[in-house]
Amino acid sequence: MNNIKRRICVVVTARPSYSRIKTALTAIQDHPELELQLVIAGSALLDRYGNAVDFIEKDGFKITAKVFMVLEGENPTTMAKTTGIGVMELTNVFYNLKPDAVVTIADRFETIATSIAAAYQNIPLIHIQGGEVTGSIDEKVRHANTKLADLHLVSSEDAKQRVIRLGENPEKVINTGCPSIDLAKQINSETKLNFNPIDKYGGVGSNLNWLDGYIVVMQHPVTTEYKNAKIQITETLKAIKELNYPAFWFWPNVDAGSDGTSNGIRAFREIEKPENIHFFKNMEPLDFLRLIKYSKALVGNSSTGIRECAYLGIPVINIGSRQNRRLRATNVVDVNCISNEIILATKKAISNGFYSSSEIYGNGSAGEQIAEILATEKLEFSKTITY
Amino acid sequence: MNNIKRRICVVVTARPSYSRIKTALTAIQDHPELELQLVIAGSALLDRYGNAVDFIEKDGFKITAKVFMVLEGENPTTMAKTTGIGVMELTNVFYNLKPDAVVTIADRFETIATSIAAAYQNIPLIHIQGGEVTGSIDEKVRHANTKLADLHLVSSEDAKQRVIRLGENPEKVINTGCPSIDLAKQINSETKLNFNPIDKYGGVGSNLNWLDGYIVVMQHPVTTEYKNAKIQITETLKAIKELNYPAFWFWPNVDAGSDGTSNGIRAFREIEKPENIHFFKNMEPLDFLRLIKYSKALVGNSSTGIRECAYLGIPVINIGSRQNRRLRATNVVDVNCISNEIILATKKAISNGFYSSSEIYGNGSAGEQIAEILATEKLEFSKTITY
Amino acid sequence: MNNIKRRICVVVTARPSYSRIKTALTAIQDHPELELQLVIAGSALLDRYGNAVDFIEKDGFKITAKVFMVLEGENPTTMAKTTGIGVMELTNVFYNLKPDAVVTIADRFETIATSIAAAYQNIPLIHIQGGEVTGSIDEKVRHANTKLADLHLVSSEDAKQRVIRLGENPEKVINTGCPSIDLAKQINSETKLNFNPIDKYGGVGSNLNWLDGYIVVMQHPVTTEYKNAKIQITETLKAIKELNYPAFWFWPNVDAGSDGTSNGIRAFREIEKPENIHFFKNMEPLDFLRLIKYSKALVGNSSTGIRECAYLGIPVINIGSRQNRRLRATNVVDVNCISNEIILATKKAISNGFYSSSEIYGNGSAGEQIAEILATEKLEFSKTITY
Amino acid sequence: MNNIKRRICVVVTARPSYSRIKTALTAIQDHPELELQLVIAGSALLDRYGNAVDFIEKDGFKITAKVFMVLEGENPTTMAKTTGIGVMELTNVFYNLKPDAVVTIADRFETIATSIAAAYQNIPLIHIQGGEVTGSIDEKVRHANTKLADLHLVSSEDAKQRVIRLGENPEKVINTGCPSIDLAKQINSETKLNFNPIDKYGGVGSNLNWLDGYIVVMQHPVTTEYKNAKIQITETLKAIKELNYPAFWFWPNVDAGSDGTSNGIRAFREIEKPENIHFFKNMEPLDFLRLIKYSKALVGNSSTGIRECAYLGIPVINIGSRQNRRLRATNVVDVNCISNEIILATKKAISNGFYSSSEIYGNGSAGEQIAEILATEKLEFSKTITY
Repeated sequence: MNNIKRRICVVVTARPSYSRIKTALTAIQDHPELELQLVIAGSALLDRYGNAVDFIEKDGFKITAKVFMVLEGENPTTMAKTTGIGVMELTNVFYNLKPDAVVTIADRFETIATSIAAAYQNIPLIHIQGGEVTGSIDEKVRHANTKLADLHLVSSEDAKQRVIRLGENPEKVINTGCPSIDLAKQINSETKLNFNPIDKYGGVGSNLNWLDGYIVVMQHPVTTEYKNAKIQITETLKAIKELNYPAFWFWPNVDAGSDGTSNGIRAFREIEKPENIHFFKNMEPLDFLRLIKYSKALVGNSSTGIRECAYLGIPVINIGSRQNRRLRATNVVDVNCISNEIILATKKAISNGFYSSSEIYGNGSAGEQIAEILATEKLEFSKTITY
Repeated sequence: MNNIKRRICVVVTARPSYSRIKTALTAIQDHPELELQLVIAGSALLDRYGNAVDFIEKDGFKITAKVFMVLEGENPTTMAKTTGIGVMELTNVFYNLKPDAVVTIADRFETIATSIAAAYQNIPLIHIQGGEVTGSIDEKVRHANTKLADLHLVSSEDAKQRVIRLGENPEKVINTGCPSIDLAKQINSETKLNFNPIDKYGGVGSNLNWLDGYIVVMQHPVTTEYKNAKIQITETLKAIKELNYPAFWFWPNVDAGSDGTSNGIRAFREIEKPENIHFFKNMEPLDFLRLIKYSKALVGNSSTGIRECAYLGIPVINIGSRQNRRLRATNVVDVNCISNEIILATKKAISNGFYSSSEIYGNGSAGEQIAEILATEKLEFSKTITY
Repeated sequence: MNNIKRRICVVVTARPSYSRIKTALTAIQDHPELELQLVIAGSALLDRYGNAVDFIEKDGFKITAKVFMVLEGENPTTMAKTTGIGVMELTNVFYNLKPDAVVTIADRFETIATSIAAAYQNIPLIHIQGGEVTGSIDEKVRHANTKLADLHLVSSEDAKQRVIRLGENPEKVINTGCPSIDLAKQINSETKLNFNPIDKYGGVGSNLNWLDGYIVVMQHPVTTEYKNAKIQITETLKAIKELNYPAFWFWPNVDAGSDGTSNGIRAFREIEKPENIHFFKNMEPLDFLRLIKYSKALVGNSSTGIRECAYLGIPVINIGSRQNRRLRATNVVDVNCISNEIILATKKAISNGFYSSSEIYGNGSAGEQIAEILATEKLEFSKTITY
Repeated sequence: MNNIKRRICVVVTARPSYSRIKTALTAIQDHPELELQLVIAGSALLDRYGNAVDFIEKDGFKITAKVFMVLEGENPTTMAKTTGIGVMELTNVFYNLKPDAVVTIADRFETIATSIAAAYQNIPLIHIQGGEVTGSIDEKVRHANTKLADLHLVSSEDAKQRVIRLGENPEKVINTGCPSIDLAKQINSETKLNFNPIDKYGGVGSNLNWLDGYIVVMQHPVTTEYKNAKIQITETLKAIKELNYPAFWFWPNVDAGSDGTSNGIRAFREIEKPENIHFFKNMEPLDFLRLIKYSKALVGNSSTGIRECAYLGIPVINIGSRQNRRLRATNVVDVNCISNEIILATKKAISNGFYSSSEIYGNGSAGEQIAEILATEKLEFSKTITY
């Protein structure tokens, strides 16, 4: 009998990726036949982007290695170089950790570094959340990750069919649902917001009266249009200010253009002094979901609106092209990045109220399923296209 | 009227890639609406791998930038890190050269560095020779390149259909044939070998009497089995020695395992002292094709056997899995890497004689077609999968 | 007769380095026997650190190459990795530019990347502003730069003697004075502040009434104590607030700990809302000197207090250990980083008034002297210690 | 009472460095208050340069981390870039290992990577074998290492005085002697060569009759003259061939130019077929010393001739500028790299016989002394020059 555990190395490079994988990490850690090797890299280590590493350690995970790799500049050139640094560094990490499999998550630009470092070293590569469709550089990266990966654990039936059409062996494509839905399920039975967001997380801006209803805003720059980031964020800021409804706003993550976005927010605050907006840098994942669950609507272009909000039934005003062609439930309304459109759609969403829960992105058991598959599936590092 | 030329940046990272792109380089350089930016990188700069850079300069090309990026070690770990270094360096090169489009060639491991450096910087990426099928890491890299690229100039109808099935816009997939066939066409009308290979290129080993017939051998390591490289090359060496037929043998290129291959050759020479083999490090591309054209057969696993030999009608004994599933003409016989199989197949091929020319990899106008497409096709850097 | 110009490659990696070298750049550019190759790298390219590149281009310099190399994190680990990236990138830049000599400036941590990239490639290396003494990592870097350099253009007689004691050939150590004094000389004859700082540069904070007198504050983190950066900056903030005298405050540059410093400033502003302080990110070098020239005192730990203020005769309250052991004129008073000490010393300095000009750091002709030396001095890349 | 061991991280980047530090590694490993963290990097990992890593593991050392960092090309450009990669990689290694002190050895070009990675992260840096004098890039690197290091364990009184003159605190400069002498001492009491070099190590070339006397040759390229490497090695080859005395010859290490040296040797062998020379790639350190001890003379430019041979009393014909100004005992004769000079000096040395032992580089207890100092000396990471 062989009682050596499979070593599963998961690379988390950003705050949102952590939320997307957290329940799988727990399930891997708890699985008797798996050993978790957790690598925290990129913006997940950085104060400016919410210091995800602190939450991860607070959640009780032991971090096996940390990798600084984000080059300053927040433009397409530094994104590319960051990825190159990531390949160099992660290669070394895998070489020394000798994992039995490496897990790469979704489609952020730097995730391809994880994929290359594993695939080139003949380490079986598992890709989580492939097969979806969006715009921008994410689209290229996601499908390239698919072509480098040996096993695909996708979040929806739609994604599963697409990965198979990309020439992957159907036996190696499994729809587990998205682990982010597992978190949504955990808090879905709570009946009220069990913390005061401003007391607990500080942040800056007005001390809102949010008890009678509020919205949440989260808008990331769209990479290939990064010069327009400032203009776009300003449209949304104008809309939210004019709505004059209490709003909790989250700063964007690290992408080319986020300086434009950040500068846009700073400039708007300095000049317009909006009184109905409070800004947060970040929040523990569960608290973030709680905040959304008790909101009247989520405004912006975050994938949370597409995924977790489908399950939670929260109205979403989805702005612009960032989530183009991602599978949607009925809770999502798409608008252009134009102040008036945002205002109208948000008003309507607030008055319409909540939706029933949709399981298009899973039923809340993704983490458990992923761990079980990692423990039992045959791990390979060689494949050829099916056609 | 706009008379600014499009700047086309082509990155050549290895000797064989140069042969594959040479006529396109000439056509780009000569095209009135194009400006060639030629970047030589990786093993193409290194003496140990045949110093392709010298041939390139001798052929009259002006080199815009050189990039050292090959990490020593020749194992999967250094292949991955080399790629990371390539991403960092090529990003810088493109940032400073500001090309209108970047061309990445085929499927060597480091070609994805070119793809990432271009795609992430929103530079339209043209991929040459995508859509084919092989084994090993090349397979993953080639299709990942396809998913990062915006325009696909493929070498066969088979490849074209496969790229389209991968979800690329059919209007962006064009079968130009392979530029390597252009070279084969150039020398196809010659009637005899117009140089003495040993006099012109030196090399080491026996001074063969090759005038009455000879074969050519070229066998690369198969990456994912690199520990077996030495065993495999020894099988072929034994076969060729036993055949006792004059043989010109080419050293392998830079891949994980090539040390195993090189060591295998060195050890065999030292111990077995084969008298019918002469070894070359490299040869000018046209001379290499001439040598093959007047040979009785090509033995090994080089893609030259699959492509140029199809057009030239030369019998090919294709060893092992490296060219698995690449489209073949009738000139190719597949054998396992077993001494006896190689001997039998080679004898049979020598006695059977030549084949008629096949145009499955093009008719010899690929270079011209590529240049014209680069001059006229709309250049874009954003796409979404077609399904 | 040989009329080929010497190619002099100067690498500027940060805003303050630009001020330190500007007049030399002009003199090199104007010199008939020199060709300037100007490389802008590191934080000089970044918006967060004042975008020195914009000022450089506005000043009419043509930039030969730009190099992104600052890794995010602002801690000792990312400082080291930034330096490694710098070595890789600058090596490539020099390889392609083929300069006859490379100039590295002073002692910031990343300047050793310039030194290594030049020295290892056998390019004569000129070090500007060696031989001084401070605390922190700068101290190690400066003298290591000296040991890698072939020609030393120092800023004071004191520095010259120290470089010679370090075993350098006395003929290769020349006291030109500091180019920053050249700038101070240019504005020293003006009779009043010819611009309104807030109108011209914006910034944030109170709209001061500065016409009747103001001070300038500039305090950088001390690298080896970076965890204390926030505490230290808060002491100074408290002092300046309590003084209740109009103050123009400059954000710190990029060093490990500057996040602590920045956070300290942001937190203090949010809570204490100081009404006598206006904050700037950066200013054109000449305007910065003008602002200082008409101030009552400079408070902080900037080297400007030690150098330019010596020449301008401005009282300086120098805080903490950062400028330890740098040669001082009589205008400098040293205090510990304790609120009360800062207040007392500043009050006294304001009431005492200005000092007469000192030329310990040069007489304002450094740029011209540097260019002339670069044009005429024998350039070598090999040396041995003198003892 | 604090019984936590000090973690001492030693970075070995090349085969010769291992010989230089081996007894110290053993003493650190055996010391009750020290924990050895052994990092093997650079050419020490590479087959082409003698695979030192195999000897290290065979000697019973546990390797904590391995770092591939040697860029192919063997020219000044790749030396510089290798160093940059080393800084990036070693920074990561130290960050994750958290050593209490880092040891950097001597003066090879890549040792400055260790120094920067440690010094910039505020880890106390111990430099072994500083303070000596040579030519070429080593000279610059060695003294730069001194200026980055906090504690200096030197090999001779001469070196100690030089480090102090470089401005280091005399209390931080300790003459332990060179650990390579410890090895020499270990084998000095043996009375005859206890192995057959050709049987045990293979190698290539003539099967010498060495029992009646032989010489050993070891000649490295001189970096700053790397284009001349081939010419230089050929002079020595001609001399040794003409001497017609049995000679064991060792291939050079990895430095810019070693390709020239290797090519020179290969070409000479192919054409001249010298019958009195047998070539080795490498040998276990003790066997190497044994081979020298029973030789009639050592010819070349290896530092072994200067150090170990002083202690062993072996005549040394030291060729060219590489060991310029290193402290010598009476056993060394210096010659130019001219065939006739080498022949004459070697003949004379063979006939003169052995020298009495000199302890200018230590008495054979360096390893023990180093370990004890590392266990007891105060470890600091901040310093200022003493003058």
